[in-house]
Amino acid sequence: MFQTFTAATSPEQGPPRLEALRAEMRAEGLDAYIVPRADAHQGEYVAPCDERLAWLTGFTGSAGFAVITADEAGVFIDGRYKLQVRAQVADDFTPVDWPATRPGKWLAGRLTAGAKVGFDPWLHTADEIEKLAKDLGDAGVPTPAPNLVDRIWTDRPAPPDAPAFAHPIEFAGETSGDKRRRMADVVTGDGHSAAVLTLPDSICWLLNIRGNDIPRNPVVQAFAILHADACVSLFADSAKFEALGPDPAIDIAPKDAFAEALRSLEGPVRVDRTTAPLAVSEILSDAGIEVAWGDDPCILAKARKNDAELAGMREAHLRDGAAMVRFLAWLDAEAPGGGVTEIGAVTALEGFRRATNSLREISFETISGAGPNGAIVHYRVTEGTNRPLKQGELYLVDSGGQYPDGTTDITRTVVVGAPDDEQRACFTRVLQGMIAISTARFPRGLAGRDLDALARAPLWRAGLDYDHGTGHGVGAYLSVHEGPQRISRISEVKLEEGMILSNEPGYYREGAFGIRIENLIVVEKAPELGDKRDHLSFETLTFVPIDRRLIDKAMLARWEIDWIDSYHRAVLERIGPRVDGDDLAWLKAATRPL
Amino acid sequence: MFQTFTAATSPEQGPPRLEALRAEMRAEGLDAYIVPRADAHQGEYVAPCDERLAWLTGFTGSAGFAVITADEAGVFIDGRYKLQVRAQVADDFTPVDWPATRPGKWLAGRLTAGAKVGFDPWLHTADEIEKLAKDLGDAGVPTPAPNLVDRIWTDRPAPPDAPAFAHPIEFAGETSGDKRRRMADVVTGDGHSAAVLTLPDSICWLLNIRGNDIPRNPVVQAFAILHADACVSLFADSAKFEALGPDPAIDIAPKDAFAEALRSLEGPVRVDRTTAPLAVSEILSDAGIEVAWGDDPCILAKARKNDAELAGMREAHLRDGAAMVRFLAWLDAEAPGGGVTEIGAVTALEGFRRATNSLREISFETISGAGPNGAIVHYRVTEGTNRPLKQGELYLVDSGGQYPDGTTDITRTVVVGAPDDEQRACFTRVLQGMIAISTARFPRGLAGRDLDALARAPLWRAGLDYDHGTGHGVGAYLSVHEGPQRISRISEVKLEEGMILSNEPGYYREGAFGIRIENLIVVEKAPELGDKRDHLSFETLTFVPIDRRLIDKAMLARWEIDWIDSYHRAVLERIGPRVDGDDLAWLKAATRPL
Repeated sequence: MFQTFTAATSPEQGPPRLEALRAEMRAEGLDAYIVPRADAHQGEYVAPCDERLAWLTGFTGSAGFAVITADEAGVFIDGRYKLQVRAQVADDFTPVDWPATRPGKWLAGRLTAGAKVGFDPWLHTADEIEKLAKDLGDAGVPTPAPNLVDRIWTDRPAPPDAPAFAHPIEFAGETSGDKRRRMADVVTGDGHSAAVLTLPDSICWLLNIRGNDIPRNPVVQAFAILHADACVSLFADSAKFEALGPDPAIDIAPKDAFAEALRSLEGPVRVDRTTAPLAVSEILSDAGIEVAWGDDPCILAKARKNDAELAGMREAHLRDGAAMVRFLAWLDAEAPGGGVTEIGAVTALEGFRRATNSLREISFETISGAGPNGAIVHYRVTEGTNRPLKQGELYLVDSGGQYPDGTTDITRTVVVGAPDDEQRACFTRVLQGMIAISTARFPRGLAGRDLDALARAPLWRAGLDYDHGTGHGVGAYLSVHEGPQRISRISEVKLEEGMILSNEPGYYREGAFGIRIENLIVVEKAPELGDKRDHLSFETLTFVPIDRRLIDKAMLARWEIDWIDSYHRAVLERIGPRVDGDDLAWLKAATRPL
Repeated sequence: MFQTFTAATSPEQGPPRLEALRAEMRAEGLDAYIVPRADAHQGEYVAPCDERLAWLTGFTGSAGFAVITADEAGVFIDGRYKLQVRAQVADDFTPVDWPATRPGKWLAGRLTAGAKVGFDPWLHTADEIEKLAKDLGDAGVPTPAPNLVDRIWTDRPAPPDAPAFAHPIEFAGETSGDKRRRMADVVTGDGHSAAVLTLPDSICWLLNIRGNDIPRNPVVQAFAILHADACVSLFADSAKFEALGPDPAIDIAPKDAFAEALRSLEGPVRVDRTTAPLAVSEILSDAGIEVAWGDDPCILAKARKNDAELAGMREAHLRDGAAMVRFLAWLDAEAPGGGVTEIGAVTALEGFRRATNSLREISFETISGAGPNGAIVHYRVTEGTNRPLKQGELYLVDSGGQYPDGTTDITRTVVVGAPDDEQRACFTRVLQGMIAISTARFPRGLAGRDLDALARAPLWRAGLDYDHGTGHGVGAYLSVHEGPQRISRISEVKLEEGMILSNEPGYYREGAFGIRIENLIVVEKAPELGDKRDHLSFETLTFVPIDRRLIDKAMLARWEIDWIDSYHRAVLERIGPRVDGDDLAWLKAATRPL
């Protein structure tokens, strides 16, 4: 099993560590100190050695940070972790509602003019520290400092040392040499002499490699410099790369050599102010080298998947779809008898995915929520919260797999037994939003923001909504959450052919049930139709039945019914040949026309 | 009749005037000269004395400008005027596709370094000239100059001198004193000592006055200075204001005194860089007075209609709706026999509106397009283009009235005889978009941009679209087009309670037919529903039947059919008591449930 269900921390661990940290702060002359959840690579998951926030406070959520002063210790968390943080941290810590309260503003009310606010410049971006300084005003000065947690964390795990391995051209679709040339052209075209890369998925994409340094994300942790001649200097433990063999265009040096290599560059050096550690630009500036702020050029290039990547994603989704169908058939057989719990379902689902013999990892912690637990948007089941699936309740399962050819992410909501009218009405509205995105055609040039209302309008009309984005970007055997494209109220990035997105409207009724339906989709040039305008549309990647028992047909327009029926026909055509026996019988029943 | 159908210009008038203008340019040492369609008040309509562009070139469209060099004369027009401009201007003028080609870029390719590009600083905003300078680069320098057209236009009409009249508190809902205090607080709150107002509808709103200086818009042309003490200095012909009697808080001086009054102010003086003539900020700067760029504070305040304004708009719409119903009943009786032309329909409609005894003006030139003429988005019928309404063709009529209590703007598309399937399918998709906006509920904080896709999605799904915005702001017995709110792909202004918008999706098939359906709507706090979120929704102001013969019921969802039926029920309830005889019988038939 990849997934575990135990609590890894306890509230008692926090207070003595907090006292030890404060002693270090006094020794360094710091009035405050920030402990982020982030590592130097700003990913969603971090290695055990970078779990400083959990080690210090007990809080294990996937986003947040602590701000420590002499008297107070704020744990800044967003709405989804409000309940979890209370259970995980001791009274010495104060949960703070973030981003409503920003750390600089919170500190400004607690410090006296000119106070020193310490932070590790490898764990914060230039953007973050600039905002902090602005919010602090006269009250405090952001002050780069050593990592004080690492000083007192005596049994800190070693950094990850998993070997890197090749991502074959069959799935990558473009050689690393071609990618490096293309990215170097972007960098030199903008007048820069080199670009610093600090995001593991950018580096893995550029070099056509993958790794196992981080849970759930198949990446290698490293820093890189892309030079104007398309050569790359890579900074990581060279042992990780031994199996790959040498490449004359790629020079590997230890991480320790990164700072010195930065100092030897000629400017202007391109640095991404929203993702690179502040330390990078500080080292360059201190050495008198011009820093040119600019996007990591790999981010947008990586988002536009090529034909090989799309072919791999399609195949991964059919394989994963068959596993999901076997899981749902099993669930339908077992759950009504009362023998399935949330943990049991996660275990079974991971088993069906493993049985494909291709699963490298799950792509994130499965969200497995029965009844009221389904209403907790980022619910992670533990032994303490585990709940059986009950008759008449909804069950929401959001999960995905990492396969050599692609990454999947799918949510289905099913009913155990028979649903009531309210469950059906809400499910049908969520489905209408999901169909609106699935069937959307739109002029080239629109951003996710311009489409977000389509997914929400059926819920809005009933006075309902959901408090998360409609869709996020997805990597090809890389991070399940990748930018820059999104479907959300705030996403200004134009949608382009080859971008993969999730399409996942939802509805959550606290204490009662949660509904989310999620397919992955790819932006494509729309088939010719009507006035032959330059329109884009979405190809659906995910093929798994949508629970027919939860659909109120009378609420739907003819074209919506047609979409569901033709989707289910496609599911049967594509997944049917990959399952058999009771699973195939279940699939045939589940995909009948409405 | 307010509307005329004759061509007021001829292509022959242009060339000799162009030569005369070039002689003036040489005398002033200018290498180029810009003749805008705008006056000093940047409205959509201008007085006859300000029709310089039409006088010089023959082009009578409502937007555009000419750029004259020694050898060329570009007439910059947008897509809707492409055909019209060719018919109206002589070969000496070259139509230029604008905004694709910007005047500065066009000139930059035609001038040699440092050329002088003359313009009248009273007819261009600071924003415009800044963009011009940027686009010109080294090729030319924007050079304020006297108005050279006025020098050679020997029989130029006199400026408008219509008397101003009071807009009563019954319709205004807030005294001018209260408005002036409220706006002065905005201005002083931003640290400014005064604000310059140059938009006639801002001034009319602020002072609760109306006038007849401009066709279609019931405004007085004037400049104003709002002082920190909430007093106003008004610059206009004082004779216009005699009937209103004196107000100690309002000081009236001739327009000529405006520049001197600006020079006597203490800074910082608030000036709107997107609407005020460049001359205003230049006069202030030359006198050493600090210019503070800031929005005309009246624009947003005026957009949020108060209860009295909304009550007036509702009543105006019922009155106008009854006139429209009488017109549509007449049309249905007369058109199938072949006896109605586009001009005949305009004349009849204006007659029905006049018969209300409340019509002050039409709110814009009626767009009356039969068959293929309906596909010309801003079609204005003339004797030369007039076309009879024919069996089996669609007829599009977009019109409105100015009444003492409100401004209306409505479009209906009807079929003469029986429609074909394609007409019905397209009409039904346009109607679906219009219903999507009519029924939209959405979180507070969204802008028109965030809703625009809802109106277009039903067309997009069929590969269709329309090349205009979905909705514009509308004034209360003021301009039929007013900002800042809009429903369009580029509108970032948040929608707020009391804002009035049009809701007018369309579809245009060149050479065949045009479809547009338009109601006015008001942003309101949404009725409590579902999860009691802070949602906004729209109240519909317009009550006129939508042609049932053009609706394909099988394409609609139950909730869309319900909206149409309940809308038609409301039309009958509200307009029924205002018509009788054959008109009432027609109305009853036209509002039957689907």
